Amino acid sequence: MTDSDFTIYQPQPLLIVISGPSGVGKDSVVQALKRRGLPFHFVVTATTRPPRPGEVNGQDYFFVSKEEFARLIDQGELIEYAIVYNDYKGIPKQQVREALASGKDVIMRLDVQGAATVRKLAPEAVLIFLTTQDEQELIARLNKRKSDSAEDLSLRIATARQELKRAAEFDYGVINADGRLDEAVEAVIAIIRAEHHRIHPRRVSL
Amino acid sequence: MTDSDFTIYQPQPLLIVISGPSGVGKDSVVQALKRRGLPFHFVVTATTRPPRPGEVNGQDYFFVSKEEFARLIDQGELIEYAIVYNDYKGIPKQQVREALASGKDVIMRLDVQGAATVRKLAPEAVLIFLTTQDEQELIARLNKRKSDSAEDLSLRIATARQELKRAAEFDYGVINADGRLDEAVEAVIAIIRAEHHRIHPRRVSL
Repeated sequence: MTDSDFTIYQPQPLLIVISGPSGVGKDSVVQALKRRGLPFHFVVTATTRPPRPGEVNGQDYFFVSKEEFARLIDQGELIEYAIVYNDYKGIPKQQVREALASGKDVIMRLDVQGAATVRKLAPEAVLIFLTTQDEQELIARLNKRKSDSAEDLSLRIATARQELKRAAEFDYGVINADGRLDEAVEAVIAIIRAEHHRIHPRRVSL
Repeated sequence: MTDSDFTIYQPQPLLIVISGPSGVGKDSVVQALKRRGLPFHFVVTATTRPPRPGEVNGQDYFFVSKEEFARLIDQGELIEYAIVYNDYKGIPKQQVREALASGKDVIMRLDVQGAATVRKLAPEAVLIFLTTQDEQELIARLNKRKSDSAEDLSLRIATARQELKRAAEFDYGVINADGRLDEAVEAVIAIIRAEHHRIHPRRVSL
């Protein structure tokens, strides 16, 4: 009997995607996870827009030139990217690789389409689908976003309706009900903890 | 969008098996889980031996006649059974069915062979493999069992060696290191919690 028999699992670092329709509270959950001070790497997005006052490169965003961004696209070095108001935003693979190589779990906040992209790129990622308690709660939250016109709102609701149907593509579901953010965060932490105890670990390569 | 879209997972009751070689602390973990007062059903074993003073039927054991035990065997109503010092011991399926039907998670402590039997009977069971930190810890624990002769001890070590190789048949691995029982129990609770968040739940039928 060698000690290697006792290594019943290799604590592989995980790639965790927090996703769900608009309004379910993805940012709230990720911010609350950050406040816990756990040793996660939270993914930083690259953007071609200039920094706003107070924004720190590598912390709020990676601020890159359009040339640099074009190079990342060409080399397939972005997990996903999009044009937002004439500026590019995307997630560089390299930081995820580096964080995983250092043994850290990587946490990524993505919309439902982005989560599906990660599933294809890294099938071993842990996909968590956030949702609200019920329809009323989701609509109330979408309503609160004051920047939306009535037209935007009905578009967002229609999109959420379609996205809810895609929950089956995910591994885990977590309800982020009004006033119960802590419960949702505890569920996410339990999921991450349990995944580290899998006998057959998920080995992510990007 | 109906509210049923928000039912992204059905919180199915789980069948959880706590297993591992002799000496890893299966009983300690199960006793500690009991003390947490969580709404689990802990499986009670049926036995043909007479109750000892203070033992309560249905709590310590189900005390049944040999005729009744024979009937349970004949009808395939035992998850597993064994002869221990001329008395029969086994786990009746019916209590597991009833507990699951009432919505309770069922926790079962089994040796490695018993866990393999459950995997065949109920592939959707959650199998947790307990182990020690290393070989030294396991041998020290087996050594402490004063009832064992030196011959028994070497047999137990040989058995443990074989059983450790079967960890790959399990879903999760948990280290129950000396003085760190709470950590093992927390891991088991996180695993159970996470399993309840699976989008595609394990539906156990027995």
